[in-house]
Amino acid sequence: MFTHTHALQYEAKPDGPDANYARRLQEVLGGQWGEMTVATQYLLQGWNCRLPGKYKDMLLAIGTEELAHVEILVTLIDRLLDHQPLKPDSADHSKESAAAYGQSNPQHAIVNGGGAYLRDSMGLPWSGGYVTASGNLMADFHYNATAEMQGRLQVSRLYNMTDDKGVKDTLRFLIARDHYHQMQWLAAIEELTSDGLDGIPVPAAFPMDEEPPEFAYTFLDASDGAEAANGRWANGPALDGTDNTLSAAPIAAHADAPVLPPGDPRLYGTPPVPMQGLLQKAKDALK
Amino acid sequence: MFTHTHALQYEAKPDGPDANYARRLQEVLGGQWGEMTVATQYLLQGWNCRLPGKYKDMLLAIGTEELAHVEILVTLIDRLLDHQPLKPDSADHSKESAAAYGQSNPQHAIVNGGGAYLRDSMGLPWSGGYVTASGNLMADFHYNATAEMQGRLQVSRLYNMTDDKGVKDTLRFLIARDHYHQMQWLAAIEELTSDGLDGIPVPAAFPMDEEPPEFAYTFLDASDGAEAANGRWANGPALDGTDNTLSAAPIAAHADAPVLPPGDPRLYGTPPVPMQGLLQKAKDALK
Amino acid sequence: MFTHTHALQYEAKPDGPDANYARRLQEVLGGQWGEMTVATQYLLQGWNCRLPGKYKDMLLAIGTEELAHVEILVTLIDRLLDHQPLKPDSADHSKESAAAYGQSNPQHAIVNGGGAYLRDSMGLPWSGGYVTASGNLMADFHYNATAEMQGRLQVSRLYNMTDDKGVKDTLRFLIARDHYHQMQWLAAIEELTSDGLDGIPVPAAFPMDEEPPEFAYTFLDASDGAEAANGRWANGPALDGTDNTLSAAPIAAHADAPVLPPGDPRLYGTPPVPMQGLLQKAKDALK
Amino acid sequence: MFTHTHALQYEAKPDGPDANYARRLQEVLGGQWGEMTVATQYLLQGWNCRLPGKYKDMLLAIGTEELAHVEILVTLIDRLLDHQPLKPDSADHSKESAAAYGQSNPQHAIVNGGGAYLRDSMGLPWSGGYVTASGNLMADFHYNATAEMQGRLQVSRLYNMTDDKGVKDTLRFLIARDHYHQMQWLAAIEELTSDGLDGIPVPAAFPMDEEPPEFAYTFLDASDGAEAANGRWANGPALDGTDNTLSAAPIAAHADAPVLPPGDPRLYGTPPVPMQGLLQKAKDALK
Amino acid sequence: MFTHTHALQYEAKPDGPDANYARRLQEVLGGQWGEMTVATQYLLQGWNCRLPGKYKDMLLAIGTEELAHVEILVTLIDRLLDHQPLKPDSADHSKESAAAYGQSNPQHAIVNGGGAYLRDSMGLPWSGGYVTASGNLMADFHYNATAEMQGRLQVSRLYNMTDDKGVKDTLRFLIARDHYHQMQWLAAIEELTSDGLDGIPVPAAFPMDEEPPEFAYTFLDASDGAEAANGRWANGPALDGTDNTLSAAPIAAHADAPVLPPGDPRLYGTPPVPMQGLLQKAKDALK
Amino acid sequence: MFTHTHALQYEAKPDGPDANYARRLQEVLGGQWGEMTVATQYLLQGWNCRLPGKYKDMLLAIGTEELAHVEILVTLIDRLLDHQPLKPDSADHSKESAAAYGQSNPQHAIVNGGGAYLRDSMGLPWSGGYVTASGNLMADFHYNATAEMQGRLQVSRLYNMTDDKGVKDTLRFLIARDHYHQMQWLAAIEELTSDGLDGIPVPAAFPMDEEPPEFAYTFLDASDGAEAANGRWANGPALDGTDNTLSAAPIAAHADAPVLPPGDPRLYGTPPVPMQGLLQKAKDALK
Repeated sequence: MFTHTHALQYEAKPDGPDANYARRLQEVLGGQWGEMTVATQYLLQGWNCRLPGKYKDMLLAIGTEELAHVEILVTLIDRLLDHQPLKPDSADHSKESAAAYGQSNPQHAIVNGGGAYLRDSMGLPWSGGYVTASGNLMADFHYNATAEMQGRLQVSRLYNMTDDKGVKDTLRFLIARDHYHQMQWLAAIEELTSDGLDGIPVPAAFPMDEEPPEFAYTFLDASDGAEAANGRWANGPALDGTDNTLSAAPIAAHADAPVLPPGDPRLYGTPPVPMQGLLQKAKDALK
Repeated sequence: MFTHTHALQYEAKPDGPDANYARRLQEVLGGQWGEMTVATQYLLQGWNCRLPGKYKDMLLAIGTEELAHVEILVTLIDRLLDHQPLKPDSADHSKESAAAYGQSNPQHAIVNGGGAYLRDSMGLPWSGGYVTASGNLMADFHYNATAEMQGRLQVSRLYNMTDDKGVKDTLRFLIARDHYHQMQWLAAIEELTSDGLDGIPVPAAFPMDEEPPEFAYTFLDASDGAEAANGRWANGPALDGTDNTLSAAPIAAHADAPVLPPGDPRLYGTPPVPMQGLLQKAKDALK
Repeated sequence: MFTHTHALQYEAKPDGPDANYARRLQEVLGGQWGEMTVATQYLLQGWNCRLPGKYKDMLLAIGTEELAHVEILVTLIDRLLDHQPLKPDSADHSKESAAAYGQSNPQHAIVNGGGAYLRDSMGLPWSGGYVTASGNLMADFHYNATAEMQGRLQVSRLYNMTDDKGVKDTLRFLIARDHYHQMQWLAAIEELTSDGLDGIPVPAAFPMDEEPPEFAYTFLDASDGAEAANGRWANGPALDGTDNTLSAAPIAAHADAPVLPPGDPRLYGTPPVPMQGLLQKAKDALK
Repeated sequence: MFTHTHALQYEAKPDGPDANYARRLQEVLGGQWGEMTVATQYLLQGWNCRLPGKYKDMLLAIGTEELAHVEILVTLIDRLLDHQPLKPDSADHSKESAAAYGQSNPQHAIVNGGGAYLRDSMGLPWSGGYVTASGNLMADFHYNATAEMQGRLQVSRLYNMTDDKGVKDTLRFLIARDHYHQMQWLAAIEELTSDGLDGIPVPAAFPMDEEPPEFAYTFLDASDGAEAANGRWANGPALDGTDNTLSAAPIAAHADAPVLPPGDPRLYGTPPVPMQGLLQKAKDALK
Repeated sequence: MFTHTHALQYEAKPDGPDANYARRLQEVLGGQWGEMTVATQYLLQGWNCRLPGKYKDMLLAIGTEELAHVEILVTLIDRLLDHQPLKPDSADHSKESAAAYGQSNPQHAIVNGGGAYLRDSMGLPWSGGYVTASGNLMADFHYNATAEMQGRLQVSRLYNMTDDKGVKDTLRFLIARDHYHQMQWLAAIEELTSDGLDGIPVPAAFPMDEEPPEFAYTFLDASDGAEAANGRWANGPALDGTDNTLSAAPIAAHADAPVLPPGDPRLYGTPPVPMQGLLQKAKDALK
Repeated sequence: MFTHTHALQYEAKPDGPDANYARRLQEVLGGQWGEMTVATQYLLQGWNCRLPGKYKDMLLAIGTEELAHVEILVTLIDRLLDHQPLKPDSADHSKESAAAYGQSNPQHAIVNGGGAYLRDSMGLPWSGGYVTASGNLMADFHYNATAEMQGRLQVSRLYNMTDDKGVKDTLRFLIARDHYHQMQWLAAIEELTSDGLDGIPVPAAFPMDEEPPEFAYTFLDASDGAEAANGRWANGPALDGTDNTLSAAPIAAHADAPVLPPGDPRLYGTPPVPMQGLLQKAKDALK
């Protein structure tokens, strides 16, 4: 259960309107790697977590914080949308140039009446499919670390696309939180490992003797790039705690070309069964 | 540029048909974490890579291998779809029980005529949005490691959902490759770090003195779980190479509740501007 | 900003597992009219609301409550997924019949490892496009009332699809809240009207003398159903506060069939310009 | 069954081309609240309607009229797309400024060759998911009223984004029809009520004594906005025809924090079962 | 502009209910190749057609007919949904077996209350993206012929999935219309050619001397299948009216491996620019 | 199984950067008719093909070639994205005008860091739903021919939207391949026919005496366009090898208006059953 306060976790006040930039900020609100994704993903992982205690508690804590970031971005975008030009010729009377008018999102005016929404910077709606909660914390924490990296990367890029000091101040806050959250997930991965809850390869509980070992330690090279095997991934000890060694080999085929049987004739595929057409053709040739 | 051989990288021959299981296998072919995703993601990251040499070469090598896995899964599903029952009463005459008929995917028959397609196990089409190539290898390699973890997790689960020995043999191959590929990406992350190309937090090149430090090292607790801060993520040295220490604090507001200005009256939002309705109401009250 | 407590707003404890029903409940969690929609929609309308005071405060209050309903449904589904059968033959050993196995969602096991996710009962991911915040409260409150009606309708139907007393207890709570929330939005529409903030037709601020009156009060009948005009919508006073009368008429054309000019020849549409093909044909005919 | 005439229900002739505006008009053709939605929604509700007579007849009549509006908008967009500039430097030679070029939709030229299509103003394809036909007319008529409100709102905004008199003339027609159609649905809601076919709360047939009354009449406040309960929704008689009174209360928890059982070990979630990792860790500590 | 009659173009009356089959029929109503696609596609091509006369008139005539097919399928599905079992145990008392219950679509009950909707047999909403109207009739008529082929194929398969005589009667009508419509589009392609409006390759108006001829007449073989070039496509005269000859050759590279320049450092890609990391690493090595 | 070479099938080197044009090229990379579609479609049709020999071999050969075209377009877009302006005012210092800035895709910078991705020119992700492999080669080869026509049409239009000679050189290559591939599919259709594998109507194996002949040879005219029947499609011999004649007739109804039974009362549709509301109303009237 949640409670809400109208006060913001951090200030979200641009120096002036900028409809072009408001559209760009949608990416980190409603895009694949935006705040909607991390908020709902951490909450869902927390609710689904079947191990009571620190991991579950931590997930619900951070998921709830991310809801505050959604709120911050919505507020920032709303303010940037003040005075969005409605026609090309209006653009001349504000700091938005013709270029910025061209970049602005018409739905911000037509659909939302000057407000943010749950879509990315190209207008694609946010999707529940962005959210992963696999039930395996090791796999999910790696995804969470990824999300904070892609997120901080995008905000850092956006930071270089504006001169508005108010906007930059808010972005600095978000960049710092993404900085911390990257460390948080990497620390949690360390802790999962030291708690013996999982390991590499994920899931560690799959019985390793079911795997054919010749495919578990070899980089298979299917391209002609000269340096593909000159990395740690094809040299040195395995990273799974066994005493195997990583190596490289060219890709090779281990099975013949497949031959599929004819399909069910009630599905009218090609060929018909029995091969009526070919038979008929043969018959016709005999005439 | 690519060339293709009809021979398979690994055998894909089930002992018998199983339309129920064919539908389930679609998840690791055309689902978010399936082979279509990793094949196209590694290729795209490789093509977009602006650093010539080992990383680019390795990406194109593995992306090309994953195309062979797409081919293996398509072949496996095609064979499992032989004799897909077309009506409920047909189900009695084969090993598929009524339960399995219920689970089967009607599009496998109606749309594909007994063949695989690029959708997941619930029929959602594979999306190019699953593919991320951010231009930052550190962020992307973490995503790649995640993809191999989620992928191996799903195949391991599918392994426990069938008794078909031919299917299990193919899955063992895929599980072993996912085992290797997890190590590959973790090794590549190590190598990126030791090559000095990036670090934590990603992107390391964003100037750290632009960040407010009070937000970069603190776990902010927004929930009442008792153990949320009892982890490595709120204790001990930072993981970013600085000498900061991680700590915890309750979440707090740092800005007042936002007050947005009235919108553009040409957008007909609420309130109208000037506050006609309220004014009118006041006037009416005076009558 | 939000804070979270682990305690639930209402109990979510089924008497036993039921993977079939877990799949069905996804509809009111992640479907178009599910709890994810109303939670994010009310919050977004609240954040975007440019009129400080009771409406904005109410929107943020109810949006926050709906987050607790998301949490309740996730918990309920998680528990219903205990012991989800992984193969058809396992189904015999639990209360799930073959029928229920057939209905179960394979992603609940393969993707989520026994947990809820943000998709509907047919596996379509929840979409940010379900959320509308138009900036016009009158239009949005009608949508909100609709959402509570469709939502209560769906939960009432689900109530008739199970005999599990624990599940039914939770659904009764949700049905009661949807009952209240329907009244809430209808009351808010009354209040918006009495506050003079908008009226019928929405938006009332569009100047009515810009409208051609012959199209503003007439039911146009384009079908041959005998009773189409036998309703209030074609008889009696207008509902917009004017003294116009509603009436009916058959649909009629008011403009000629459009003739479009030829397209830009650089776009290679049909016809080519000048009508080369026809010209050439004419020339050929002369030979 | 339908028949078609080439004559238009209303004129759709802009004074001149405007590719920027053509893109914007896509919103009310192929957007969530556009003409495609209302046309197919009313027809589907009509076909699915299990109550013969005036409601069914009226639904099919208006759905058929809306098809004519689709036709009008397609025609209007087609004409606005004449002379769409294909390169930036062409923009100078027409009334389209650089700003307008930037806003134009490249698919109008590349994909459609100068024609309209079934997408919104940001290029998202129209979705069958926009259409609701729940089988409950009371719920659906509220949705229909909403659709006409959101639709009229969007067209009214578009009206303020152009100076083209021909375009404005067509929009006036659409605004007037949306005006009438709002009244139509509100009248139909009145009529459904007076016919005793449903009531508030929808569906009225769900037995009210199954609902816990303490949750059916109370505004639960989960936020700290001071005025949230200062509205009709928390004061005065209920709107469901009972003699209950609406009131307000702070949100409260009614159930303990949920504890989920460990998952199926065959799904490789966290924790493993039995808690192997933790056990192993304990054993290791004893060495 | 359209008018509608309640009478159906053809009867749509199943002998009995069958919720399983109702779900399957959704494929040809709301799937990619269903009636919604052809109806809206032909109408859109007709409206957008810039060549007045027979082609435009024919497109609008057939698009209007297809709307009647949408109506027929909706009606058929509605009737098949009578008595849809709401729980597994109800299934025993009707002709629906457990298998059929498993296949049934829960949204038909929960969302639609026993009615059809605009989604395919796996629950994916119909998409406006299915509709193509390129402005080039030759390209579009080939697509239309395809649509009638895929459509007739699907209905023929569905015909083999039921024993209901009423259903089969309706399907025979649809199969016959798809038979005719295939011929219609192939005839229209002939006529476009004989009218000189376009030819092979489409668009014929692109100047052929801009094409490198060595790539315009050669089958390039990128796979090791022995018989790939043993077809008409690699032998005999070209099909474009020129006197070129088709031939085959192995695929070959015509350009060096691309080397991309480093990216903009403000985007924080890998590598950083200048190669700070590597430089720093070199410096550190010197210490 | 595939192998890859870094060398390109054809050069992909623009003369200069052009972010506007890079966005447009996304259409033929990741749009419905782009290279991703044809590559994966031909491969899937090849893998699923149940007839060994020339058709299967040819499909896999061309699918593999199309992967090289994906690579070429990605490379071309990457190079066009060099120096993408990050802010409006940067636009002045390069050849990109304000118009071009407005057209540029912000995700190219924010999400991809200056690289291509798998979306179309309006930012819609590529979908596995674009790919059809029906199991019937005749139907699929018509779709393949369509794809090459729509593809060549789009590239030809793009050719007229740029003056960059390097770009135009690459496009000429693609246009020539599409030229050849159109002939390839038309030749393959001829060959399928002469091999007797299928015919018109597709599927030819559906027993023609099951069709009502009065619907199989008649153009039904549902619109008032004067010339709709003045084409080959309504005159002359049938195109299906029979001796029937094509003709035309106005559309007519062949069944009464459908009357649906009341729905299941447990679904709370309108009307309630028994007609409680109406009964109650009658009772009230008696009071």
